[in-house]
Amino acid sequence: MYQSIDFKGYDLSNEREEIVPIGSLNHLSTKYESLDYEVIENELYRKEEQKKGYRYVVQKDFSRWMTFFWIDFDDCTENDCMVKPYLVALVLNLIPSLIGSCLIVYVEPMAKGSGIPAVKCFLNGIKVPRLIRLKTLAVKVIGVITVALGGLWGGKEGPMIHAGSIVAAGISQGKSTTFNKDLGALNFFREDHEKRDFVSGGTAAGIAAAFGAPVGGLLFSLEEGASFWNQALTWRIFFGSMISMFTLHSVLSAYHGHPGDLTYKGLLNFGKFDDLSYHILDIPIFVLMGIIGGLTGALFCHLNIQLFKFRKRYINKNWKKVLEVLIVCSTTVTISFVLILFNTDCKKLGLDPTDHPIQFGCNDGEFNAMAALWFQLLEGTVRSLFHDTPDVFNTTTIIYFGIFAYFITLWTYGVHFSGGVLIPGLCTGAAWGRLVGRTIFHFFPNTNIGIYSLIGAASQLGGITRMTISLTIILVEATGSITFGLPLMICLMTAKWVGDFFSESIYDTQIELSGMPLLAWDPPPLSSNIYADNLMTHPVITFKTKESVGNIVKTLKKYSHNGFPVIEYIQNYELDEGKTKCYLRGLILRSQLIVLLENKVFDGPLTNYWDSITMETFREDYPRYSSIEDIELLQNDLKLTIDLSRFMNPSPYIVQHTMSLPRIFKLFRAMGLRHIVVVNDSNEVAGIVTRKDLARYKVIRHMGKISVTELKFSSKME
Amino acid sequence: MYQSIDFKGYDLSNEREEIVPIGSLNHLSTKYESLDYEVIENELYRKEEQKKGYRYVVQKDFSRWMTFFWIDFDDCTENDCMVKPYLVALVLNLIPSLIGSCLIVYVEPMAKGSGIPAVKCFLNGIKVPRLIRLKTLAVKVIGVITVALGGLWGGKEGPMIHAGSIVAAGISQGKSTTFNKDLGALNFFREDHEKRDFVSGGTAAGIAAAFGAPVGGLLFSLEEGASFWNQALTWRIFFGSMISMFTLHSVLSAYHGHPGDLTYKGLLNFGKFDDLSYHILDIPIFVLMGIIGGLTGALFCHLNIQLFKFRKRYINKNWKKVLEVLIVCSTTVTISFVLILFNTDCKKLGLDPTDHPIQFGCNDGEFNAMAALWFQLLEGTVRSLFHDTPDVFNTTTIIYFGIFAYFITLWTYGVHFSGGVLIPGLCTGAAWGRLVGRTIFHFFPNTNIGIYSLIGAASQLGGITRMTISLTIILVEATGSITFGLPLMICLMTAKWVGDFFSESIYDTQIELSGMPLLAWDPPPLSSNIYADNLMTHPVITFKTKESVGNIVKTLKKYSHNGFPVIEYIQNYELDEGKTKCYLRGLILRSQLIVLLENKVFDGPLTNYWDSITMETFREDYPRYSSIEDIELLQNDLKLTIDLSRFMNPSPYIVQHTMSLPRIFKLFRAMGLRHIVVVNDSNEVAGIVTRKDLARYKVIRHMGKISVTELKFSSKME
Repeated sequence: MYQSIDFKGYDLSNEREEIVPIGSLNHLSTKYESLDYEVIENELYRKEEQKKGYRYVVQKDFSRWMTFFWIDFDDCTENDCMVKPYLVALVLNLIPSLIGSCLIVYVEPMAKGSGIPAVKCFLNGIKVPRLIRLKTLAVKVIGVITVALGGLWGGKEGPMIHAGSIVAAGISQGKSTTFNKDLGALNFFREDHEKRDFVSGGTAAGIAAAFGAPVGGLLFSLEEGASFWNQALTWRIFFGSMISMFTLHSVLSAYHGHPGDLTYKGLLNFGKFDDLSYHILDIPIFVLMGIIGGLTGALFCHLNIQLFKFRKRYINKNWKKVLEVLIVCSTTVTISFVLILFNTDCKKLGLDPTDHPIQFGCNDGEFNAMAALWFQLLEGTVRSLFHDTPDVFNTTTIIYFGIFAYFITLWTYGVHFSGGVLIPGLCTGAAWGRLVGRTIFHFFPNTNIGIYSLIGAASQLGGITRMTISLTIILVEATGSITFGLPLMICLMTAKWVGDFFSESIYDTQIELSGMPLLAWDPPPLSSNIYADNLMTHPVITFKTKESVGNIVKTLKKYSHNGFPVIEYIQNYELDEGKTKCYLRGLILRSQLIVLLENKVFDGPLTNYWDSITMETFREDYPRYSSIEDIELLQNDLKLTIDLSRFMNPSPYIVQHTMSLPRIFKLFRAMGLRHIVVVNDSNEVAGIVTRKDLARYKVIRHMGKISVTELKFSSKME
Repeated sequence: MYQSIDFKGYDLSNEREEIVPIGSLNHLSTKYESLDYEVIENELYRKEEQKKGYRYVVQKDFSRWMTFFWIDFDDCTENDCMVKPYLVALVLNLIPSLIGSCLIVYVEPMAKGSGIPAVKCFLNGIKVPRLIRLKTLAVKVIGVITVALGGLWGGKEGPMIHAGSIVAAGISQGKSTTFNKDLGALNFFREDHEKRDFVSGGTAAGIAAAFGAPVGGLLFSLEEGASFWNQALTWRIFFGSMISMFTLHSVLSAYHGHPGDLTYKGLLNFGKFDDLSYHILDIPIFVLMGIIGGLTGALFCHLNIQLFKFRKRYINKNWKKVLEVLIVCSTTVTISFVLILFNTDCKKLGLDPTDHPIQFGCNDGEFNAMAALWFQLLEGTVRSLFHDTPDVFNTTTIIYFGIFAYFITLWTYGVHFSGGVLIPGLCTGAAWGRLVGRTIFHFFPNTNIGIYSLIGAASQLGGITRMTISLTIILVEATGSITFGLPLMICLMTAKWVGDFFSESIYDTQIELSGMPLLAWDPPPLSSNIYADNLMTHPVITFKTKESVGNIVKTLKKYSHNGFPVIEYIQNYELDEGKTKCYLRGLILRSQLIVLLENKVFDGPLTNYWDSITMETFREDYPRYSSIEDIELLQNDLKLTIDLSRFMNPSPYIVQHTMSLPRIFKLFRAMGLRHIVVVNDSNEVAGIVTRKDLARYKVIRHMGKISVTELKFSSKME
């Protein structure tokens, strides 16, 4: 499947689109565009003030809904009837699942899943269509609520990150295309460059609110998105995260009757580990658990690809997609009832972690421990597995629960619903981690099994997502104990190494399956013998500094390129086999040309004089520019010219044709570029390097071998 | 003093050195060189394993020394004699101060102060002479111990950061020039690029050990040093910080009789705030405290410059420098005794924060509260001010103590000793913060005054150092309460804004006084009308691809430049007014040329054949290359040539002569460059831009006005 490629002899043609088999990892979609980060700097305003008080929208407390359900439910279990509660639960779960999946399938598919892979790509510089829209936000928020109500195994944390990004990006723009509203304010933020920074902030704020982890949020946004470290931006992101967390908390404290009390207390989602300690001899156990997490995580990612292929092939109609969600939902409910009924794990009342103990097949004065695991929010289940005393759950209860958790998470992640893998992953790991803890507890009764549960949770999620720094800190913040920093690092690192040996992370798998041209952190190894010459796309479509309108329109219609070098012919040098030399003068973007055409900024007596156009004119249309097809021009206009030199970027970054791939890659990555112009020895434009030219060299680390493969281009888009 | 400069009309000559008045901020020293970061990537090994178990060297528990002192001391106070203990204290403090200052003045002046400004410059890319040496480390470590023994107002935290950097850099090199030892291992790390990464890690590990703040350490090293965010490096830095903290802790736990117990407990230097809360109405008070911190911090920096000038003028002999330290030491001891004796603040025993209550002028059953503040380590004093009950100290005690703390810190920071400003700054702020707390406590007796003390400490240190993200997290980690994240951010941000209105931070002040060419985060504003044309140094000294040895030697002797473009004359183009065109082929460093000359890598039958030289040969001499004067060559050698094209960097980053300053600046900063070659329209080498060309445009933000000044060059070096 993988093979090394000979860098010297690859295909140089520009028409590289091929048919790519379903579920292939080795392709790049030609449908994704880059963002235009490269701008002359603008002063950033502090964004934090504009971000207050929105992120808790998602975290609605729906326990009241559930209570109604239990009222009916408890009633019935006392009489030992099973069919009625089962049917009630089924219906109550299916209705929200149906609503949520229909919204995603029919209204906005971009709101599907956790959204983290897409946000990661956006931060990497890819224009992901419809990712940052109000409609997507609305569907996402409603979707998350339906997921929780529908009892599906999806976390709300990923969606909160996505939602945070949208809110931050949306507020920063001061307008909504969906509602056709333009507040007119904040229009200086209408640039890709600014929007990316806001999205970083929103991501961090999402984590801060979801896990109560502002530092973890900051580091997540750096780990997944950053390229150039910027002190001011980082500080703003951190401040935003803090505000986000404290806003959430002050709302909660007002809700609980202590308005104005800003103290952060009790927001540790996974419960505080107060008095746990570990010994140096625990370290090998943590490493072992990291290995288990890495192996099961890699399997998870592998099976996810198979499921993806299956779905592409068979679940290809919208109604089938909705149906799958309903099947997942029914299966979840059914298995949970079967497990609760047939796994008799009755414990004395008093140990129960929930507010409403469920008797369900147990004697009076007892509760059903399996039911206690089930009938909480996933977050609560994680908390139970971390903190409940060793006696609460039988070993078989945890085994059944763990196996079920693993597979239902796998199945659920990828159906058309709006939920993430973070909490389900933690839950699965917490289950088998607790099992490890119980085993050790069996031999050393002084053991506190909570820490093994925590390490298991971290290992499992680490194996699936390969998050390292940020996950360590998120878990430290969410459990309030820096004590476990080192053990968490050790198990997460092990999980990452083991997992990477077999597969990519779940997020990177998703990104590859969708063909998004993500740029890695580092250039491919051993590639310094590839030069710009080989890498670049050529010939390049260029414009002259004074270009005719007709030619611009014709070119824009013919080519879909987004950046065009602007050149000047110098007549002095008209020697050398009769060639005219064309020197690079700048770079102009398609979007700029569109605006110029729309506003008729032509050189001529009857058209707009050039200085009626300002930076404002360009910002107004951002981010959805007209298509060239929609612009209507008179026949006379086509004969006029535009002076591009006034609007182009006058000093784009250039490289010489002898520059090596690693250096071009680093330049591209560090400066957040979209185009690099390649010049030849005599400074003529020789070619252009874009994201896709760099992203197509994919490094594959598999089973300890490193190879580089060249991706194929396809026009499909997931 | 400050004025805007006209960018178009500045001095283009290369001989710009001028006489710069003492204590002038507007100069750049020509003595500092850049580091050579720009290398083709090498695989980094994990450094963490090589860093275990060294950092606690500094944190020697010298309480036993002090105990001997108190035994004698307590004895005497009971008999109410004052002269004897005073004299004993004086002598016991003066001896270590004398030793420490002599070491710094006569052995290694680079070990002076906290070392943070110099480390910051190193991470910024400046080759700071003697900063990263074993001798400096030795003097620093002994220096810190003498500071603590001598009772001087200096923190051990800054020096620990510096020490951490040296250890990390030293271990990574596997050799010591001081001891003339080369282990032969790890020589692939012998590049500036690698060394910088290790220094980042060492810095973070220093903070982790000093404050028990691994995340704070990571963020400090990013805030002060990073330019390009690198995920793998960050993860390694974080891991190193964790290991550092846990190593320290496991040593401490073994020392306290619990070997193997790795649990992090009780390492919160400033004591854990458990049950504090704050109200939304406290926020304006925190802002006010931030303003106070900013104002007093700015005054601190201003007075520091005046002291610097005074010292340059009058304390210009080595013996005077030592004498100043002794005077500072005596003054500290004397004032402390005067305050203890004449400020009668006797409290009932039981409230005392120290282990050995000092009666000193109080009745039996009482202790002297002022003495309790004094006779602890500074860290302990901070802890007392944070946590002791409101009754322990009288208002006057705190006022006297606070005023004294401020001025003695000011005086002490800058004398020739090895201590930093972090803890003294916190201590000063904790004092006046407690005063604010007492005032509020007077009206609202439910107030816990600890939080005001903490906010005061943060504001004061923030006003002096202008640290933001990292200081927030360090204090959160050192007090164990994320509750105070937001208040700390608010006061630190206010302190920074207010402080920046009047002056630079203490570290930047020190850097400016020394003339080190630090590159700021961002290019100067409104400078996009400055082009490479104006910025670059020209004409450029170049070499041909095949260059004669004689010419290389002559050039190296004549010019002190560190990088030379390598060009090739192309005869085909010999037209255009008879000029020969010279195309850029690469860039070669002075150090590379020196190695080539030393190893006689010449083209000729009798000299070394070129492939006997490998990357090893270049690494062997790192980092101290011979001077060109020390290389002896035969007369015949001078007639030979070297084929530079085999050794040069074949694709240096280039910019066109029309590139604007902001873009060049960003490129330079993001890629960590030392040289950028500027080419003209026809791709000939037009000039070269180095760090000094960029650093000389200094942005001055003073009293709300922004101006740009052009720095002068001087050859003095602080």
